[in-house]
Amino acid sequence: MSATDLDNEVASHLKSLLPDDSYASLRDTVLPTLLSSIGAVAEALRTSSRVSQLGSSNSFGDDQLNVDVAAEDIIRKALSSCPSIVTASSEEDPVERMKTDAARVEGDLEHYTLAFDPLDGSSIIAPNWSVGTIIGVWKGTTAIGQNPENQIASVLGVYGPRTSAIVAVRHLSAITACFEVGINFAEERLATELLRPQVRLEEGPFKTRYFAPANMRAAAENHKYMELITHYISQKYTLRYSGGLVPDVVHALVKGHGVYISPVTEKSKAKLRRLYELAPIALIIECAGGVAVDPVTGERILGKAIENTDERGGLICGTSHEVRFAIHKLSG
Amino acid sequence: MSATDLDNEVASHLKSLLPDDSYASLRDTVLPTLLSSIGAVAEALRTSSRVSQLGSSNSFGDDQLNVDVAAEDIIRKALSSCPSIVTASSEEDPVERMKTDAARVEGDLEHYTLAFDPLDGSSIIAPNWSVGTIIGVWKGTTAIGQNPENQIASVLGVYGPRTSAIVAVRHLSAITACFEVGINFAEERLATELLRPQVRLEEGPFKTRYFAPANMRAAAENHKYMELITHYISQKYTLRYSGGLVPDVVHALVKGHGVYISPVTEKSKAKLRRLYELAPIALIIECAGGVAVDPVTGERILGKAIENTDERGGLICGTSHEVRFAIHKLSG
Repeated sequence: MSATDLDNEVASHLKSLLPDDSYASLRDTVLPTLLSSIGAVAEALRTSSRVSQLGSSNSFGDDQLNVDVAAEDIIRKALSSCPSIVTASSEEDPVERMKTDAARVEGDLEHYTLAFDPLDGSSIIAPNWSVGTIIGVWKGTTAIGQNPENQIASVLGVYGPRTSAIVAVRHLSAITACFEVGINFAEERLATELLRPQVRLEEGPFKTRYFAPANMRAAAENHKYMELITHYISQKYTLRYSGGLVPDVVHALVKGHGVYISPVTEKSKAKLRRLYELAPIALIIECAGGVAVDPVTGERILGKAIENTDERGGLICGTSHEVRFAIHKLSG
Repeated sequence: MSATDLDNEVASHLKSLLPDDSYASLRDTVLPTLLSSIGAVAEALRTSSRVSQLGSSNSFGDDQLNVDVAAEDIIRKALSSCPSIVTASSEEDPVERMKTDAARVEGDLEHYTLAFDPLDGSSIIAPNWSVGTIIGVWKGTTAIGQNPENQIASVLGVYGPRTSAIVAVRHLSAITACFEVGINFAEERLATELLRPQVRLEEGPFKTRYFAPANMRAAAENHKYMELITHYISQKYTLRYSGGLVPDVVHALVKGHGVYISPVTEKSKAKLRRLYELAPIALIIECAGGVAVDPVTGERILGKAIENTDERGGLICGTSHEVRFAIHKLSG
């Protein structure tokens, strides 16, 4: 696959963000392939209603897994056409494996590691709510133990009434950017559209203010989280919380403001995987001008290296002053 | 369009629910046409990312309306092939109009009135969250002032990663039923699938309990609603609230339990339209074995006639004991 498979506008936009040919593979092959595979996952979801519907509370288990595995397979298969991706791991198969032929790729100076969550939000697949894919692209042959600055791109795929993706790029000679692409993949053909050339989290003030309180049950045993939620209600914030990490974060990005809170309390352990969920989302949020921090330390998610593929944490992200306020309330 | 356009399983299911030929048009034309038009609306949404995306907080207004109007047009056009539908009105055009040729339909003893909300959830279209269509089918030439028992069928279309619909049928010789259909409409061809022959709201107990608190801002000025929300949090209910009426109600239907609350308080007026939103949803919920009541009076939504197309109200619906508890807390 080459950049010509993308709509001209999207291809030009990528070219303007990554003019340096030391990123040629990322620009012309890796990112187009990832967008295409998101289109293919969307098509698989759209036509597999019977498989998906089995994932109800009545019949949880293996059948639900099928959709996750299908998404995993589609993305893995797509990667095989990207020689510059030498290592990949996913939330479904959380072991970094180098491609067996990776060492043999000659004349290609670009080497990338992919870390992805093929289908996030399995609990809301059965009722047909929007779900998503999360992908981080790292420079080099591993993401573990690396400076988070090496994560130079990330992509969130959103499967809803239509298919869309938020893409972030940030590294040295690349221009820091966050943009939205519309994707339509049907009958093996990919159509893309540049929807928002610049996704930005603004400071406001806004008439409507949004909050997304994840793991609200934790507030039952943590008075600070309960007080924070009560604060939002009494201040008449608007609740938008689907329980899908991708749609919940993308809501803020598309509306241009908002705060997402997934706290960690004594009785409620950290749930989100740093490699497959937190790091890619943090890059998107930061490239959009927002802030993504650890709810316990208040420090940037991207402030420290990821120790292993199963390392977990909480998340507060969104508009910077909203994130600062939430951290102040939870840790104060 | 005839029933043969439906998948055999869906057509047989409808035939088993409506064996009486006095419902032949409803069974063979009206319901298949409505399912088909939901497929067509899904296809329109899927391929109109640019129109939809304009509906962000930055550029609200006419552009957003385009998607609503497109859905309205698709459904209206479909109705023209249903001679037994003699009257129709919608949330976009809330005036009951009888078809000009309606009086001339001879030999057809079935006459139906349609009341529909073509695209509910405009505020969450831009971020690509699931949205829906709501349709009520009434016996006779008007829905206004009629016994709500005359609403003999209703349909909720869900536009998410795939397209699905919940259908309810209840009247005299018809068998009371609520079922789920998978819909795939592409290249002018409709494919349907019977996903859940019986959608049921069960009493539990369940390990996970869901709540969907609409208009949470009202709790800022209403301590009873605030206490109810605090109760759910302290009892560790799981929050699922997208802000889209259709996906929020369908979440409970597909999970098999849950409660949706849209209160009416002194400062927060009733918002949901009885004709286009409340009545069709109440029929679905009741046919699934649940309860749908007015939050002020505690009485059945379907307990009294609809006075005009703009009449509004609140809603508490879902699993019966959850609804009773919420009413008790809000009115107690």
